[in-house]
Amino acid sequence: MEIAFQDQGSVHHCHGCGADNEKGLRLKSYWDGDDAIASWQAQAHHCGGTRENLNGGIIASLIDCHSLNLAIALAYRAEQRAIGSGPRIGYVTASMNISYLKPTPIDQSVELRARVAKTEGRKTWVNCTLSAGGVIRATGEVLGVRVEWN
Amino acid sequence: MEIAFQDQGSVHHCHGCGADNEKGLRLKSYWDGDDAIASWQAQAHHCGGTRENLNGGIIASLIDCHSLNLAIALAYRAEQRAIGSGPRIGYVTASMNISYLKPTPIDQSVELRARVAKTEGRKTWVNCTLSAGGVIRATGEVLGVRVEWN
Repeated sequence: MEIAFQDQGSVHHCHGCGADNEKGLRLKSYWDGDDAIASWQAQAHHCGGTRENLNGGIIASLIDCHSLNLAIALAYRAEQRAIGSGPRIGYVTASMNISYLKPTPIDQSVELRARVAKTEGRKTWVNCTLSAGGVIRATGEVLGVRVEWN
Repeated sequence: MEIAFQDQGSVHHCHGCGADNEKGLRLKSYWDGDDAIASWQAQAHHCGGTRENLNGGIIASLIDCHSLNLAIALAYRAEQRAIGSGPRIGYVTASMNISYLKPTPIDQSVELRARVAKTEGRKTWVNCTLSAGGVIRATGEVLGVRVEWN
């Protein structure tokens, strides 16, 4: 069975997706060809202005983490190295634009799909969709910048 | 002493700022002239890719909630009504653009300042900064759309 990028050590403590963060969202990202996919189920306290819908900040978190995990995974793949192997590759978010197209029901899982739009030196632009019930609810454009981490 | 917008009932359950959400971030927004200001202290599990810095998704959450709270408070003020009074005024986020300028240390409080850039019918564009140690770490442009809630 495939192991999520995060469980391979792409990141460790991140609130949005670190496997070692017990109080975090613990998003898990996987390969789907050159895309990354993820599925995530909210809890009741992740609501927004109404209790029925997922919070916009949580949506932004999921899109941010999922997009940067794709950038990290692709960078390792380009170097033919295992995710998490040293010297560690990290990406930080330089900018993120989120469009909220429709309310996202909190009681269904959300599906994320991220795809690289462009890479230029240390910069990678990722497009990401967040869907629920087969309908895209939000889209994001994330610009990640590569850093070396210990 | 002034009462935060959220404690007046601008929102109730929101993960980012609802006073009734025990597991949320519980941001508190206040007037400063026509601006809204807020101060917030992260906990260790709100970290990003490194444990020393605040998570980008949390930053997006804070900017989103703080900006929409300003839009809500201004809409009530324009109608000379108390925040949270019926019929209730809500705003939902249509889009949000965040620029991460510098890392945000997790062990210092962050200060937010939101200001309306433009209002057009049901739409309000808010600019928001997030600072720590007197240095702006992130900026956001949030487009909120007014809705009526029960």
